[in-house]
Amino acid sequence: MDMYEKVIELARRRGFIWPAFELYGGAAGFYDYGPLGAPLKRGIEDLWRGFFVIREGFCEIECPTIGVEEIFKASGHLSGFSDPLTECKECGEIYRADHLIKHIIEVPDALADEEIYRVIKENDVFCPECGGDLSEIYEFNLMFKTFIGPGGKQPGYLRPETAQGMFVNFPRLLRHYRDRLPFGAVQIGKSYRNEISPRQGVIRLREFSQAEAEIFINPKDKSHPRFGEVADLKMTLYSKEGQERGVTEEMAVGEAVARGIIAHQTLAYYVARTCQFLMEAGLSKERLRFRQHKDDEMAHYAADCWDAEALLDRFGWIEIVGIADRTNYDLKSHMAQSQANLTVYLPLDQPRREDRLVVKPDMKKLGPLFRKEAKAVADALSALPLEELKQDPIVVIVDGKSQKIDPALVSFEMVTEEIRGEEIVPHVIEPSFGIDRILYSVLEHSYREETVEGETRAVLALKNRVVPIQVAVLPLMDRSELLAPAEEIARDLRSLDLRVEYDSSGSIGRRYRRNDEVGTPYSVTVDYETLEEGTVTIRDRDSMSQIRVVRADLADKIQALLAGEMEFLEAGTPLSG
Amino acid sequence: MDMYEKVIELARRRGFIWPAFELYGGAAGFYDYGPLGAPLKRGIEDLWRGFFVIREGFCEIECPTIGVEEIFKASGHLSGFSDPLTECKECGEIYRADHLIKHIIEVPDALADEEIYRVIKENDVFCPECGGDLSEIYEFNLMFKTFIGPGGKQPGYLRPETAQGMFVNFPRLLRHYRDRLPFGAVQIGKSYRNEISPRQGVIRLREFSQAEAEIFINPKDKSHPRFGEVADLKMTLYSKEGQERGVTEEMAVGEAVARGIIAHQTLAYYVARTCQFLMEAGLSKERLRFRQHKDDEMAHYAADCWDAEALLDRFGWIEIVGIADRTNYDLKSHMAQSQANLTVYLPLDQPRREDRLVVKPDMKKLGPLFRKEAKAVADALSALPLEELKQDPIVVIVDGKSQKIDPALVSFEMVTEEIRGEEIVPHVIEPSFGIDRILYSVLEHSYREETVEGETRAVLALKNRVVPIQVAVLPLMDRSELLAPAEEIARDLRSLDLRVEYDSSGSIGRRYRRNDEVGTPYSVTVDYETLEEGTVTIRDRDSMSQIRVVRADLADKIQALLAGEMEFLEAGTPLSG
Repeated sequence: MDMYEKVIELARRRGFIWPAFELYGGAAGFYDYGPLGAPLKRGIEDLWRGFFVIREGFCEIECPTIGVEEIFKASGHLSGFSDPLTECKECGEIYRADHLIKHIIEVPDALADEEIYRVIKENDVFCPECGGDLSEIYEFNLMFKTFIGPGGKQPGYLRPETAQGMFVNFPRLLRHYRDRLPFGAVQIGKSYRNEISPRQGVIRLREFSQAEAEIFINPKDKSHPRFGEVADLKMTLYSKEGQERGVTEEMAVGEAVARGIIAHQTLAYYVARTCQFLMEAGLSKERLRFRQHKDDEMAHYAADCWDAEALLDRFGWIEIVGIADRTNYDLKSHMAQSQANLTVYLPLDQPRREDRLVVKPDMKKLGPLFRKEAKAVADALSALPLEELKQDPIVVIVDGKSQKIDPALVSFEMVTEEIRGEEIVPHVIEPSFGIDRILYSVLEHSYREETVEGETRAVLALKNRVVPIQVAVLPLMDRSELLAPAEEIARDLRSLDLRVEYDSSGSIGRRYRRNDEVGTPYSVTVDYETLEEGTVTIRDRDSMSQIRVVRADLADKIQALLAGEMEFLEAGTPLSG
Repeated sequence: MDMYEKVIELARRRGFIWPAFELYGGAAGFYDYGPLGAPLKRGIEDLWRGFFVIREGFCEIECPTIGVEEIFKASGHLSGFSDPLTECKECGEIYRADHLIKHIIEVPDALADEEIYRVIKENDVFCPECGGDLSEIYEFNLMFKTFIGPGGKQPGYLRPETAQGMFVNFPRLLRHYRDRLPFGAVQIGKSYRNEISPRQGVIRLREFSQAEAEIFINPKDKSHPRFGEVADLKMTLYSKEGQERGVTEEMAVGEAVARGIIAHQTLAYYVARTCQFLMEAGLSKERLRFRQHKDDEMAHYAADCWDAEALLDRFGWIEIVGIADRTNYDLKSHMAQSQANLTVYLPLDQPRREDRLVVKPDMKKLGPLFRKEAKAVADALSALPLEELKQDPIVVIVDGKSQKIDPALVSFEMVTEEIRGEEIVPHVIEPSFGIDRILYSVLEHSYREETVEGETRAVLALKNRVVPIQVAVLPLMDRSELLAPAEEIARDLRSLDLRVEYDSSGSIGRRYRRNDEVGTPYSVTVDYETLEEGTVTIRDRDSMSQIRVVRADLADKIQALLAGEMEFLEAGTPLSG
């Protein structure tokens, strides 16, 4: 059993995640989050919200998951978000065509459809199922398509990313931030990708959750005011250049920017925040690295891009976050598609006076020479760049005709203009998080087995911030005199909105183990001393030590322990044992 | 301007909600939640989670929004979730056919398609757009349809409700609760309904958010252990019988059950919890009532059903929550569709010994009389109910032939059996909440205007638990000596995960008003006394009173005020004025 199998077995059995629609045989690429998985997921999302919404002063929005066609024309998903397919002419089975030639061509996704087909034909590749002939390649768009309203007139698509919601709402967001840069907007929600035949469990889902931030910045100033807070943070970097040599480097963020490895402060700031977030979510620092996109894998418009990668036992290094400087590509695309103005007017701190050389065509001389066309020639001269005005003769195009002009007919004048500001299209920094992959990585990196008194103890050492069950309440034995106070304690803790598991079935040792393997950090046991002395015990998941506390103080102590405001052994009287 | 227009204008302008895809002309039935709307929505959902997950000891799950066809065959949505359409033969415009005859037939949705068409023909109803002839009626399914994977072989549907996720996961949920009833499972998430032409803004959306709980109970015991906690709560009830007379009644929950108005304790308990939740979310008690479904509007399988209805200025009383006893309908449907066993074995507290009269046919006498058929006759006798065995003669059917048997050929014996438990299909209590409608109702019920110093002050008197902005930090003037400490205070408060608005633009009075109209409960102002004496002021939204507090205590005081643990005027030194 590899770690994936172990973790997934635990996840199914205890109710973290399981394949969806089991009652009807399931469907690849769809998973349910169960009674423990859903709160873990929410804990990770809430932690993210603290990092990338609240503490950044950004805003969160929530847009529909169905989008209209224009959005995806602008974003490029309608034309470019597809996989090449081939179909068996005999049995009708459908395949990712590039996957069928992986053993022949190293990077088959770089090939055009016709080239893939040629490789299939030349290498006698047939249907893996029945050996039949394969069809020519066609592109399959990975967006789920539907229709809005009756009549099949208005197509709608399930969004392949949440990012477009921030782009199409740019005018409203800009107004919300009173027309000032920088600002950020985020979404946490579902996205969809109609994979051909997903086979990697929770790693490749057809319906998944993303948390994406779009941070709109002044393209002329990519420094970051809070960069100092993260400059000393050390991270494992796997730069473009490091990938050539096959080496990663442990490096402070400040050094990475100073050496030009990460393009600028703002991108580096979010790489660092991502690292801090993933640590607090519970990833293992030794199994986390930041890999820079190589020039040939980066989108043509991107200025720099880094992936956070988690090391998983079965899958190796997988991407869980991407942090990119997308320049002004997205806003420019939507400007072109919608004809709306998505620029920001940036006033200068000090209005700037600028001297500018202005051309003055001599109309008195041009008039007689060009007659009716004189005005058009003068306008064409005014529009010429300075360099061309310095030629002899000067060449202008008027009504499609090239005209040669004697420089003597043109004079220059210096004028002074006051520049108060300028219209710019903001650049976008996009940290994009795959919540499902992060959640699975948290599970795998938190799982450990140890031997206790000759038995294997499985522990999910989750961080308090994300645990599904915050505290278990356990009557020592299944006897009514213990059940009643235990139930009362559970109810009291729940009234504080704490996530409480109440469990009275089985031996106390077995119940501790049940809680250990789902990550419950604290277990409260109600025993006969509770009845006699009004105290209960609290057991710590990781150390298995126990303390005894006064029942009336329990809620405060549990809250302080969960918040990390108190050391465990100082929260009560340690029990020997 | 009616209230809807006022609230929606505010909601758009300040970023609560606005129509989606504005950049591309929009699409009816889709809205965005903006920078203030998304946190308000989340606040309402979190409040709901406290009520219906944590404090009930229920679990939350998260299933895909895309579902496979079998689910909706079982649920009835595939065959029954549709609207009747007609199409203009001239211009092609499509209409809800029943809506076109509303002025002729009072309850047109009760008519069959052919009847609607007959009414259209007989009353000369033509296309409202162009006057053209209308087509025959056809049914349009309201689920958004798509296809999973390539090839168009596997249809998928966007779920029309979240409830099915709990039903199809019943076996796993039952195991999670260790095979014991009652238990509850909930989902908070998106659902979809492909409305023909939605025209009521946020009241009728094609993509909307639900919070639904499915509570699985023992059909033989619909009492509720915590009923006492809510028995004295008074609510406005509009019962079936009250609707006949057109009167609502103010009544305690206990009385409603005692008088048989609400069917049983468990249903009444959740009606009461719903009422408490809606109050805490910020609905006005005077504009809230609970309306019982009349027999002809209730689903045939339902035992009782109550809607929470909010009174809205433009739309009148609209349904925002439904609370139904759905009996065992859903689980039985999925048992039939999936062939899986969805029963629960309920052990009896005490094994029960049951005396049972068993028939003993006298084979010695039956043998000679019926020969080869004697065994079949004996079996038929054993299977007869007691009453028929008391007839003279006794009549049994064997191989389709009726046989008369002399009672003398049959004797009876009393046997004692031990009954240890039984297999039952649980009943389901379903509270189902429409989050978007609740959110809009909260906005409308919280909105008020008052005259202050001759000017109109608009206030959104939101509850602290759901406010989008918890605290505003405002430097008195836009001067750097005030900006720096104000920014620091904002950052400190954000580090506690408080939702902080920092605003330095415009007069202080104007900034207070800006915060009043979006519901910010507390505004902290940094002034010259902050620099001199280390104090700041806090202003209360509702009373507009101000107190001065020591800066070092600010975070604690704000948190205590938000949690309702402290009276405003006791949190600091009141300012006169």
